[in-house]
Amino acid sequence: MVDILHKVGIKAPLNEVYKALTTREGLAGWWTTDTQGDGAVGGVLRFRFHSNGVEVGGFDMQVLALQPGSQVLWEAIDGPAEWIGTRISWELKQDGEYVVVLFKHQGWQEPVEFMHHCSTKWAIFLMSLKSLLETGKGAPSPDDVKIDNWN
Amino acid sequence: MVDILHKVGIKAPLNEVYKALTTREGLAGWWTTDTQGDGAVGGVLRFRFHSNGVEVGGFDMQVLALQPGSQVLWEAIDGPAEWIGTRISWELKQDGEYVVVLFKHQGWQEPVEFMHHCSTKWAIFLMSLKSLLETGKGAPSPDDVKIDNWN
Repeated sequence: MVDILHKVGIKAPLNEVYKALTTREGLAGWWTTDTQGDGAVGGVLRFRFHSNGVEVGGFDMQVLALQPGSQVLWEAIDGPAEWIGTRISWELKQDGEYVVVLFKHQGWQEPVEFMHHCSTKWAIFLMSLKSLLETGKGAPSPDDVKIDNWN
Repeated sequence: MVDILHKVGIKAPLNEVYKALTTREGLAGWWTTDTQGDGAVGGVLRFRFHSNGVEVGGFDMQVLALQPGSQVLWEAIDGPAEWIGTRISWELKQDGEYVVVLFKHQGWQEPVEFMHHCSTKWAIFLMSLKSLLETGKGAPSPDDVKIDNWN
């Protein structure tokens, strides 16, 4: 099994970064504007993506664990076959003026082309998270930065 | 051992993408302006990075293999300890109007924090490569997009 790893450092208060990962409004500000559901432990967050106004897919994430200010853990329970059962882990820590976010998308079965795409796309969305918190404006889908023929 | 994977799609001629990965001038246009050395098979490319005008480190890459228009393979022979002996692989293929670049940085011993940083940073530089080829302007170091407390 193979993992996607990323790191960003964000100049913003720790509790604001945590809120952007755990509330519907926060998540909608950097990942996808169509974010619904329940961000509490055991709840399910529903992320949907649109292209030219048409829904083109998405992910359902069950919230497995929350440690305020330090950890968020999701499991993908619906979405593309390659994602089902994978886990997305967010670790937060203060380092000087930065909140460091260590991101892991763990448990991919195979390093398929879709995994390459998702790895780059996660980096783009982490930079959108950073931008949301540092400037007040993220770039969530459908206005996300496009990287390739799969968008 | 763990790998960094990425994908971008670039709307540019295949031979231009290949040149941006195999010539000193091309590499200096998206990764670091201080690129020296020999891009032929067996040659060594020397990439150096600067902050406030001071050299802060870099990488020496031996070119292991070249397949014009389809593959570039480097091995890191000098640089940070975590990089020595790792391999950077670039696969190119045409897919409709895009040149798809599949990137792999393979052979990390451990998924350390530095690997998280490098994974995100590679995504940033791949987007710089895409920008160079699509707009004529990349964002190589020292004018690269900063991601965290390690830059």
